Amino acid sequence: MTGSVKTGWVKIVGLGPGDEALVTPEVRAVIDEATDVVGYIPYVRRIAPRPGLTLHESDNRVEVERARHALEMASEGRRVAVVSSGDPGVFAMASAVFEAVEEGAPNWRNLDIRVLPGITAMLAAAARAGAPMGHDFCAINLSDNLKPWALIEKRLRLAAQADFAMGFYNPRSRSRPEGFGRALDILREECEPERLILFARAVSTPEEEIRCVTLAEATPEMADMRTVVLVGSSLTRRILREGQPPIVYTPRSVPAPSDPE
Amino acid sequence: MTGSVKTGWVKIVGLGPGDEALVTPEVRAVIDEATDVVGYIPYVRRIAPRPGLTLHESDNRVEVERARHALEMASEGRRVAVVSSGDPGVFAMASAVFEAVEEGAPNWRNLDIRVLPGITAMLAAAARAGAPMGHDFCAINLSDNLKPWALIEKRLRLAAQADFAMGFYNPRSRSRPEGFGRALDILREECEPERLILFARAVSTPEEEIRCVTLAEATPEMADMRTVVLVGSSLTRRILREGQPPIVYTPRSVPAPSDPE
Repeated sequence: MTGSVKTGWVKIVGLGPGDEALVTPEVRAVIDEATDVVGYIPYVRRIAPRPGLTLHESDNRVEVERARHALEMASEGRRVAVVSSGDPGVFAMASAVFEAVEEGAPNWRNLDIRVLPGITAMLAAAARAGAPMGHDFCAINLSDNLKPWALIEKRLRLAAQADFAMGFYNPRSRSRPEGFGRALDILREECEPERLILFARAVSTPEEEIRCVTLAEATPEMADMRTVVLVGSSLTRRILREGQPPIVYTPRSVPAPSDPE
Repeated sequence: MTGSVKTGWVKIVGLGPGDEALVTPEVRAVIDEATDVVGYIPYVRRIAPRPGLTLHESDNRVEVERARHALEMASEGRRVAVVSSGDPGVFAMASAVFEAVEEGAPNWRNLDIRVLPGITAMLAAAARAGAPMGHDFCAINLSDNLKPWALIEKRLRLAAQADFAMGFYNPRSRSRPEGFGRALDILREECEPERLILFARAVSTPEEEIRCVTLAEATPEMADMRTVVLVGSSLTRRILREGQPPIVYTPRSVPAPSDPE
């Protein structure tokens, strides 16, 4: 309840998938007002330096330390933007900040802390391909750094049985090369070989690559850590076009007789 | 392949949940370049009139007719923005346009058609409340206008068994007053009574209301058609604060022994 507690803030903001034209004006305004920006190196590098703004880059996998640093600075009266790529509430910094708040100094709960949404990679990728998430869908983080692999496997099976379209974040990394192959194996057990899969890499950046294949054609090497993988539902379709990539979309309707069970 | 086919376009754009500061610059630029805007009445009313821009408002439930109108105008060389609230690829106009393309005139496939993402209501609501979707999650449209209720029920059960956080779109309308009550009954069969539920109404508008209750406390009347309902996973928590609403968030980690099966 001191003056510094009242004037400092932490705003956890989403920078979207890469293109600056996808950053909301709300987020842009916060970055303009901040005294400090904290985040993972490549995201902080997206922020233009200016006098009065300190950029604090940190490495991957130190999310809670980074969150504590932001909260400490805010409690000293600084205006701190915590930057995430995509949406900060989707497999990004918002949960890490709240974990730090819950375990941290009691006065951190009185701070002005807000989350400002951004365009998440799954929905940016969906927009580029058409509308594969145009019906019910789910999002699963395939990294087993913070959860047991058995839970990922269970969620994959149940999501396939529910006939959700699916978005996979963090499908593959150098330290976990085999997980995504196992995920594909589970999908092959649960879904038909014609099921459509999109590999969307570096969406909205100059390196963007989007590839649409069937489950039968999909291989683990089609994904890396810059890829979000979208799996269609059983109704997801492809519209072929001359000289242009296909449009991939899920219709809005499910006819009653198609209900698989 | 005529000149008009090359110069006209259809861009299906997301206006976000309501606040103009959540409209991406990419979408704003498209609206500035459009000759025509088509959409459901309340969304078209968000667009400022200007010389050279024709606003075409249409009623709810005529999505495919509206899509055909947009495609016809584009094939005559007009620059048409199809506006949706939220993200056009999430229970909105993108799928309707692609249904019209697939069933329509062959030359519609050669048109320049793009989807531009927006902030979807579920993630805007999540940001306001904290980070309830901070772990794996799903999104379900509770309207049974276009799919059998049995499929909704099946997806709810499997999503609860997968321990996803969930976002419900269109939870309740005057024509379907009973569906959301049935959805709550299913959740009560599958989840513990302490499960956290957020009712987020008119997010980011002056009428915004966010309410956090437990599943035991939730009643069907807490939702209407302007509400998005978020259901936590079994790990979603509340941080209580003095004189401020609680922060609701889902931690990033699932400890191995918590795996329910």
